[in-house]
Amino acid sequence: MSSSFHQRCVQLRRELSGADDLGVVAEAHDGLSAMLVERAGFRAIWASGLTISSASGVRDCSELSPTQLLAAIEQMSDAVSIPILADGDSGHGNFNNARRFVRKLCERGVAGVCLEDKLFPKMNSFIGNDQPLAEIGEFTGKLKAAKDAQLDDQFVVVARTEAFIAGRGLDEALRRATAYQAAGADALVVHSKQATPHEIVAFMRAWPAGIPVIVIPTTYYNVTAAELRAARIAAVVFPNQTLRAAVPAMQAVLAKLYATRTLGAVEGEIARLSELFDLLGYDELEAAERRYAGPAS
Amino acid sequence: MSSSFHQRCVQLRRELSGADDLGVVAEAHDGLSAMLVERAGFRAIWASGLTISSASGVRDCSELSPTQLLAAIEQMSDAVSIPILADGDSGHGNFNNARRFVRKLCERGVAGVCLEDKLFPKMNSFIGNDQPLAEIGEFTGKLKAAKDAQLDDQFVVVARTEAFIAGRGLDEALRRATAYQAAGADALVVHSKQATPHEIVAFMRAWPAGIPVIVIPTTYYNVTAAELRAARIAAVVFPNQTLRAAVPAMQAVLAKLYATRTLGAVEGEIARLSELFDLLGYDELEAAERRYAGPAS
Amino acid sequence: MSSSFHQRCVQLRRELSGADDLGVVAEAHDGLSAMLVERAGFRAIWASGLTISSASGVRDCSELSPTQLLAAIEQMSDAVSIPILADGDSGHGNFNNARRFVRKLCERGVAGVCLEDKLFPKMNSFIGNDQPLAEIGEFTGKLKAAKDAQLDDQFVVVARTEAFIAGRGLDEALRRATAYQAAGADALVVHSKQATPHEIVAFMRAWPAGIPVIVIPTTYYNVTAAELRAARIAAVVFPNQTLRAAVPAMQAVLAKLYATRTLGAVEGEIARLSELFDLLGYDELEAAERRYAGPAS
Amino acid sequence: MSSSFHQRCVQLRRELSGADDLGVVAEAHDGLSAMLVERAGFRAIWASGLTISSASGVRDCSELSPTQLLAAIEQMSDAVSIPILADGDSGHGNFNNARRFVRKLCERGVAGVCLEDKLFPKMNSFIGNDQPLAEIGEFTGKLKAAKDAQLDDQFVVVARTEAFIAGRGLDEALRRATAYQAAGADALVVHSKQATPHEIVAFMRAWPAGIPVIVIPTTYYNVTAAELRAARIAAVVFPNQTLRAAVPAMQAVLAKLYATRTLGAVEGEIARLSELFDLLGYDELEAAERRYAGPAS
Repeated sequence: MSSSFHQRCVQLRRELSGADDLGVVAEAHDGLSAMLVERAGFRAIWASGLTISSASGVRDCSELSPTQLLAAIEQMSDAVSIPILADGDSGHGNFNNARRFVRKLCERGVAGVCLEDKLFPKMNSFIGNDQPLAEIGEFTGKLKAAKDAQLDDQFVVVARTEAFIAGRGLDEALRRATAYQAAGADALVVHSKQATPHEIVAFMRAWPAGIPVIVIPTTYYNVTAAELRAARIAAVVFPNQTLRAAVPAMQAVLAKLYATRTLGAVEGEIARLSELFDLLGYDELEAAERRYAGPAS
Repeated sequence: MSSSFHQRCVQLRRELSGADDLGVVAEAHDGLSAMLVERAGFRAIWASGLTISSASGVRDCSELSPTQLLAAIEQMSDAVSIPILADGDSGHGNFNNARRFVRKLCERGVAGVCLEDKLFPKMNSFIGNDQPLAEIGEFTGKLKAAKDAQLDDQFVVVARTEAFIAGRGLDEALRRATAYQAAGADALVVHSKQATPHEIVAFMRAWPAGIPVIVIPTTYYNVTAAELRAARIAAVVFPNQTLRAAVPAMQAVLAKLYATRTLGAVEGEIARLSELFDLLGYDELEAAERRYAGPAS
Repeated sequence: MSSSFHQRCVQLRRELSGADDLGVVAEAHDGLSAMLVERAGFRAIWASGLTISSASGVRDCSELSPTQLLAAIEQMSDAVSIPILADGDSGHGNFNNARRFVRKLCERGVAGVCLEDKLFPKMNSFIGNDQPLAEIGEFTGKLKAAKDAQLDDQFVVVARTEAFIAGRGLDEALRRATAYQAAGADALVVHSKQATPHEIVAFMRAWPAGIPVIVIPTTYYNVTAAELRAARIAAVVFPNQTLRAAVPAMQAVLAKLYATRTLGAVEGEIARLSELFDLLGYDELEAAERRYAGPAS
Repeated sequence: MSSSFHQRCVQLRRELSGADDLGVVAEAHDGLSAMLVERAGFRAIWASGLTISSASGVRDCSELSPTQLLAAIEQMSDAVSIPILADGDSGHGNFNNARRFVRKLCERGVAGVCLEDKLFPKMNSFIGNDQPLAEIGEFTGKLKAAKDAQLDDQFVVVARTEAFIAGRGLDEALRRATAYQAAGADALVVHSKQATPHEIVAFMRAWPAGIPVIVIPTTYYNVTAAELRAARIAAVVFPNQTLRAAVPAMQAVLAKLYATRTLGAVEGEIARLSELFDLLGYDELEAAERRYAGPAS
């Protein structure tokens, strides 16, 4: 952790508020991709359950345990200074599992968590069409437990409603958003899997001023920042593009290596080893060796 | 594990033997990249300490514990059917640590391990110029302990000498290779960081027929498969290109996202979500739900 | 693992069958207690969710993740040769979580799992009075998934019904037992929290010959082996006495140390260090050092 | 963590200073034993490498990885409010491994670490007679790295010299103690495996006023608090008695269960389940359910 937990919470809160401009939270799935997000200039990281699961070779339906997710998120948190918003899925069980997860995130310097109103084990929002939602009262209890468990009063608990994903319509989305705000959520994610932002725009027209609203335009990817600002959206999550960028690049290089059996065929299109060593701070290690290991080492 | 541990050991042994053609072992660093290596047609995977560390955001100097490395390698092993050769560094300590690591690899279905004659904590071979080597007797003891600990008699223990890396020359490399073969190693890696394969070629000229010799041409990347075959090399490791392919792709997409704030700007150049879902076998989950969860679920 | 996974499965199956005599499975919660169970002469170990949780300082309501439970059970499996029956709670989620857990148990040499017909997150059976049960069809799907996932055909899946615990009566217990047997369970646990074995005896009177029935007489602790045999019970679990034995002993020694501030006050009533070293096999390490580390080490 | 990390550091520092009276740090090896130490009235806990290893069923020679040790210590830290002094062995490698371990301890709320001047992998101090020591310059570098890595300026780094254990005599012990104090250690442990405290007393006669000196009288267990105070010892570690108390109690109960096959034979001499539930705070869970889960749950 290069900056303090408290500072990170404050920074995440500001980014999600949309106070300066549209906030942006870009996806990472391991320590290296988190570093790349930070170097690209982003001010907050989305630790995605989908992409951490995918990178691990498993499916986004609670196949990774909270312990495994925490281990991955801890490596990300150790690798960067900017704040991380952790995808908390449905909290990995009931209110008690959720608050324990929040406590562990805080200890690892993670600035916020996003909890969604689905059941455990969860299924990725883009699979199937009839995902069940948690009862409102159950989920607001979970949000309260999360807020009570946080170790810094600036820690961010985002409530994500899957009402549109579940085909439950605008009224249900509004009812849930209202309840989640009342329960103490610091921000909302209203998720949609339409090809256009119309559900989101309709929601924002009906939603009075309140806590910031964040969107995840995986499917309505053509929406622009200006359109989102016009709809009063505070922040956007770029939820899985970092990992998805890596896949075709690895495929292409592996195909070339398979065909040519020669490293030289790809050397020009991959990162240099020295670049990797720079990114990962091997120079710090050499300096530390001079400081701590002494001349004889 | 889609195929049995024993079968995987047999397959790795065959691939490294160079019996059919030059054997190839391609790098992966997590479950997803392991799947991509398998899909590309390769018959064996190199679970690299450098790239697993890099993906985790840490340096390749024993910053990851054996427990963390095993967790990553287990996810790779679960994700593929082809055999994995695990980079065992220097065995994470003495003979006792090495044999414990071997036992745990076997339980997780990993077909082989590569142990190198350096000290703990190790430093990546491309950093600095004066890396100390383990005493020959200490390292042969470690190899024997590894062989005694294996859970299948076809499990592969590869002995890697860093004699050239340490600037110790051909005679030392031959002396060590001879001792490691006598101690029971199933194959040798002779490592070099020259820009050409001349050290390796010189070694092969002086090395009598014996266990297979494997090389890792990170720095002499222009060497061709034909040249390696001509030198009687049995197999080659493509040690870190998969991860290095991912880095510029992630950088490019992140830069575009940062500049445009619009997902549409990159949608065409990244893997489709559906492709990810196919790769990770979400269809199996739907079939299993029909089988196990029943109509009411 | 001192004996093979397959052998362990066969041994557990035999012990639970009650073929020789009343089978007994005694609780352990960590590597050391598992060793003590083995040294005491028992032929099978119960890796209890309650006592592993308690030893870890947390509650038996899914506060430990499957990853944490597996880590504890793996240490137990590594420490002994006799088979382990792992308490699988409700499978840590749905059929998919359950089968993943079974796969991981098998890889770690664990001979069997006991799955119970409750929901996730589970609550310990002795807390509260109105615990909800899983639907029968959901639970039989979980049992089938567990059987399909096992890595050895002698691996044991025990189905535990909490029908009596939930106050649902004999008919419900019989209906569930019948369904679980039909779904492929290798044995049944019928759990009761009465102070006498009357529920169990009533069940056995009504239950036709079939798979072995196992009991856990935590609350009806005065029942004798002869009474259980007379009721055609195949095996008994001694579910938490090992840990409960340790607590007052630690309390007494800590109280004496607090009062006297002198180690001599307790030296006579605690295990000698040399006994601990014997139990943990330090002599093997010395022999191995002679074998592997050489004279110079 | 019931009290803040900073408070815990302050409390540990005070306890080790011997300012009020002889400080006492009592051993625990898991969450439950840590709770028992706290309930017994002690004000600080020794998270022992020997007993955590023993409880895990492995030997005290770096068989557990830092990741596994941290997982055990984190459970202890979560279970109590009093500060924990973690046995850091030799730092699990070089200065870099040591400082990474310190960072992780701080994040988990652990108030201090004890580092010893041996090599990795370590061997328990009571095994063998010729254990090698680290070079003084190497070890002082490790201490400096640990101090630079701490996340609170009241975190405690204790330097433990094994000079007497290694048979190196008083002058070496004094030379090392002097160097370690100069390097920034907050306290010293001077270890001895004699049957009397004479080595320690001789050391204290020759040692000028400085940082607090702590002892671990495993072998000279008859030494009294008054004798230690008379020798100007600031604090004492009761290093493994808690675990050693548990062993004969578990053995006795298991023997009785094996002989009688009846739980009733031991019910009177083991902790009641209700006592375990009280200790672990199941009542908090019921209260939280009322608060968070609502009437319908």
